[in-house]
Amino acid sequence: MSCVFCRIVAGEQPASVVHHDDLCWAFMDIRPVRRGHVLVIPVAHAVHLHELDDPIRARIWEVGQRIADAHRASALTSNGHNFLLNDGKAANQTVAHAHLHVIPRAGGDFLATMFRLAKNLTGIGTIRRDALDTDADEIRQHLPLF
Amino acid sequence: MSCVFCRIVAGEQPASVVHHDDLCWAFMDIRPVRRGHVLVIPVAHAVHLHELDDPIRARIWEVGQRIADAHRASALTSNGHNFLLNDGKAANQTVAHAHLHVIPRAGGDFLATMFRLAKNLTGIGTIRRDALDTDADEIRQHLPLF
Repeated sequence: MSCVFCRIVAGEQPASVVHHDDLCWAFMDIRPVRRGHVLVIPVAHAVHLHELDDPIRARIWEVGQRIADAHRASALTSNGHNFLLNDGKAANQTVAHAHLHVIPRAGGDFLATMFRLAKNLTGIGTIRRDALDTDADEIRQHLPLF
Repeated sequence: MSCVFCRIVAGEQPASVVHHDDLCWAFMDIRPVRRGHVLVIPVAHAVHLHELDDPIRARIWEVGQRIADAHRASALTSNGHNFLLNDGKAANQTVAHAHLHVIPRAGGDFLATMFRLAKNLTGIGTIRRDALDTDADEIRQHLPLF
């Protein structure tokens, strides 16, 4: 299985998981442009959004919203969010499995945030799995029920 | 009525409209960062996404998807899309009425695209209403039915 996101869903690759259900998974981005940066993916492998069934797409956006709600309610307080889905290689999609970025924002840092996203740079320094796990736990505890 | 998007919905402000229904409107961005750049807004005035009811939010994303489908099917051919919703002032929301950016992309221009968005610059030179109307017509003709 060559797709890194499919390997996460299959349990073959570690991830700091925030949510999973039959349609979607959500986990901490391994290169967070901001602390609390989460990716929401469909379980079904598809490169592009238009290849997915309507209910799967709807669930991706819905899960993204609840993660933003959890950010606001949690210790990872956020003043706002960018919901960004880069659909297709020409749109800077860097992993060939559809994914929604849910990026908590503090303000005044839009271009720095987008620069990091474009260049695959982290905004939190060295990435430690235990820190990502802690943030995932914190978000999960504040996630509104479905 | 001070909100420019509410004035568009009320017919008090011109717009090159792509779609409208009971929940959502979609029209050409007046400062397109790329040709074909469309905004999708809820009819109900709300600054933040979390203030909207679930069905309204779901409709915003759904309309955004169909606009992307229309781009691909139309003469405004696109190789990919950024779906971007800047939720809150801290996330670079520039109009205080929730709106989804649907931005067609050609590739290799992510930072230029985001720079224009951050700086409120157009990517198509002088903006002419008749050109926006022509593009809105083209998209509308290829919009999948609901």
